[in-house]
Amino acid sequence: MAQDSPPSIITLLTDFGHEDAYVGVMKGVALGINPTARLVDLTHMIPAQDVTRAALILRSAVSFFPARTIHVAVVDPGVGSTRAALLIQTPDGFLIGPDNGVLSLAAKRRQPYAAYRLENQAFFRQPVSQTFHGRDIFAPVAAHLSAGVDPADFGPAAESIVELALPEPDVTADGVRGEVIYVDRFGNLITNLDSAALDGFRGRSLSVTIGSNAVAGPVTAYAAVEEGTPLALIGSWSVLEIAIRNGNAAERLGARPGTPVTVTARDSRP
Amino acid sequence: MAQDSPPSIITLLTDFGHEDAYVGVMKGVALGINPTARLVDLTHMIPAQDVTRAALILRSAVSFFPARTIHVAVVDPGVGSTRAALLIQTPDGFLIGPDNGVLSLAAKRRQPYAAYRLENQAFFRQPVSQTFHGRDIFAPVAAHLSAGVDPADFGPAAESIVELALPEPDVTADGVRGEVIYVDRFGNLITNLDSAALDGFRGRSLSVTIGSNAVAGPVTAYAAVEEGTPLALIGSWSVLEIAIRNGNAAERLGARPGTPVTVTARDSRP
Amino acid sequence: MAQDSPPSIITLLTDFGHEDAYVGVMKGVALGINPTARLVDLTHMIPAQDVTRAALILRSAVSFFPARTIHVAVVDPGVGSTRAALLIQTPDGFLIGPDNGVLSLAAKRRQPYAAYRLENQAFFRQPVSQTFHGRDIFAPVAAHLSAGVDPADFGPAAESIVELALPEPDVTADGVRGEVIYVDRFGNLITNLDSAALDGFRGRSLSVTIGSNAVAGPVTAYAAVEEGTPLALIGSWSVLEIAIRNGNAAERLGARPGTPVTVTARDSRP
Repeated sequence: MAQDSPPSIITLLTDFGHEDAYVGVMKGVALGINPTARLVDLTHMIPAQDVTRAALILRSAVSFFPARTIHVAVVDPGVGSTRAALLIQTPDGFLIGPDNGVLSLAAKRRQPYAAYRLENQAFFRQPVSQTFHGRDIFAPVAAHLSAGVDPADFGPAAESIVELALPEPDVTADGVRGEVIYVDRFGNLITNLDSAALDGFRGRSLSVTIGSNAVAGPVTAYAAVEEGTPLALIGSWSVLEIAIRNGNAAERLGARPGTPVTVTARDSRP
Repeated sequence: MAQDSPPSIITLLTDFGHEDAYVGVMKGVALGINPTARLVDLTHMIPAQDVTRAALILRSAVSFFPARTIHVAVVDPGVGSTRAALLIQTPDGFLIGPDNGVLSLAAKRRQPYAAYRLENQAFFRQPVSQTFHGRDIFAPVAAHLSAGVDPADFGPAAESIVELALPEPDVTADGVRGEVIYVDRFGNLITNLDSAALDGFRGRSLSVTIGSNAVAGPVTAYAAVEEGTPLALIGSWSVLEIAIRNGNAAERLGARPGTPVTVTARDSRP
Repeated sequence: MAQDSPPSIITLLTDFGHEDAYVGVMKGVALGINPTARLVDLTHMIPAQDVTRAALILRSAVSFFPARTIHVAVVDPGVGSTRAALLIQTPDGFLIGPDNGVLSLAAKRRQPYAAYRLENQAFFRQPVSQTFHGRDIFAPVAAHLSAGVDPADFGPAAESIVELALPEPDVTADGVRGEVIYVDRFGNLITNLDSAALDGFRGRSLSVTIGSNAVAGPVTAYAAVEEGTPLALIGSWSVLEIAIRNGNAAERLGARPGTPVTVTARDSRP
């Protein structure tokens, strides 16, 4: 159980918003257990109980944190039911939260992983409420883990975990069809088309449409087009993104998660 | 004045919002005085000058922080007037803010407490503005306290403090009538009926109404009813709470602070 | 390059909002480089790409932080274009961000300063995206600087920087005419009239109008007038501010950045 340098960064991702003190209370509980933990907010503005959006954000963020970072995600519509609680150890860090898929996209990307069911009440805050496991289970477990407790001490191995099914792109010889999976605060449209999905068309001329709108690109930077022009590029999520330079693509193009995005390849040499 | 382990967590609760840098500036001032202080946000989204809501949140949060935590609450419609400024020492930690009741609910719950008036200008940021005591008085005092200054060094004992009057439940032989006192971001309706208020009816059958609506329960978890069904339970605030599983009870039931909530007891055995 | 006490506070100011994990990701990158850095949020709610508002907030905040604090400002409509990236060393701390004016108001107030162009890729996160320099350039540079790297190691001196032009007050023998430059969350109207601009009229009787409305004062505190009365005072920004005690001056007076504010001086003795 001894560790040379126990993990000490704990990130928090919830749908608790900022109006109440629920996030602050989770931090108080964690600091009571490990006063030296570093607490970092990912976001608390997940729309209430939107597990998929939380899972996508978690997946997008984990690779930018140091190894052994502990990520706590509490979007938990099933709190108080029989859904399990999980600790997942990946090569790069730890994921803690309910077993409803919220951890699954990040875990899948960091394989191989080991999952444990949080069942050892010794590491929970007592009494455990039926409504706020972020405070009573997930924050305390994260803090104990950050203080050096071994992952296996929290409970038995989980045989399997609930996995979210994300839409898969549809690849043909002449292109690939995917969809928008996430819209960010700027109205940028993040798709399920990663750079690998486009690699097969290297050397050919690509064009991109979203819904019924053609957009410029793929380009390499927002600045490659005039302001106000819709464009496609591989963005900071490392996937194809539809954006409008200094504008809001979601509003302008009437797009949202589920809107189809098509990349068409043509031979660029006659 | 020496202390073995000076308090080092400082929480912040304000109505400053997130648009400006006012909260950040308070943190800068505090860290300039005690670079090792741990700063934790409770919330900054109190509606402007809603002292009661701030006091309720503070009361709900303090018990989840380690002993000797310093809680700073700045909801201060009387800034620049003659209202006093307070430091309150409780068995579990410290409360700092204006003497307008914002600290009083938390203090009352953590008795016995000692209150001091912040009058020693040596611990203020100079010059002291007439408009931003969070920056010029409360944050500096909190930081000096966290660095080991004795509470009594900040000023004379306060003979009394301004106390908020919360509505008291009305208990009869056949039930108890209270009201909603707080609505959280999920639309959960927090009442002034704590579990003690219900203990007198143990063994009898309870039913709950809010306004003119009957709700299910009291139950033990959101998951005890179907989605969309209004229910009553003892929630994470340790009081009777009206909620809708995966829904917004405040919107659905048209309820807000002041809406009456009645618990009626009947003999469960004929 | 050795330093007795390397700077360790890093502040963050962006237009990223709180919905996504972009700010959290910047923190993850910074903590991966310097695990002991103290991260403080100024605000992330700058309206998308409002460089002037960000520059004003930054200028208002820097003097409240300890010497050697590192301030990172990422409001960056030109990301991916040829705009330069800057590190500016002032007598009191450091400013990091794009060369689009966002740092210029704070720098001008802390002269003399030295500016460097961030060109040394060794201190960037690789690969550098064309869309998110906050994560790939500014956060890593700030973290390396906080860990003790010499400012000159990040790139060559910048001959000049892009400067924002703020409206200058118009001073006459009988008064001064300025304008609103910033509206805060409470609706307080911050002007470009600092206390120095009013010093020339000391001993004379002053009256203040905003748009076509006369307001009370200048007074010394909100509490000097009745609730609901518009007033002028030197506020927490150390400039003339129009406010309504426990009310929203911007809404009531229909004012916004650009609304004219006039101070008229009359001889107070006959």
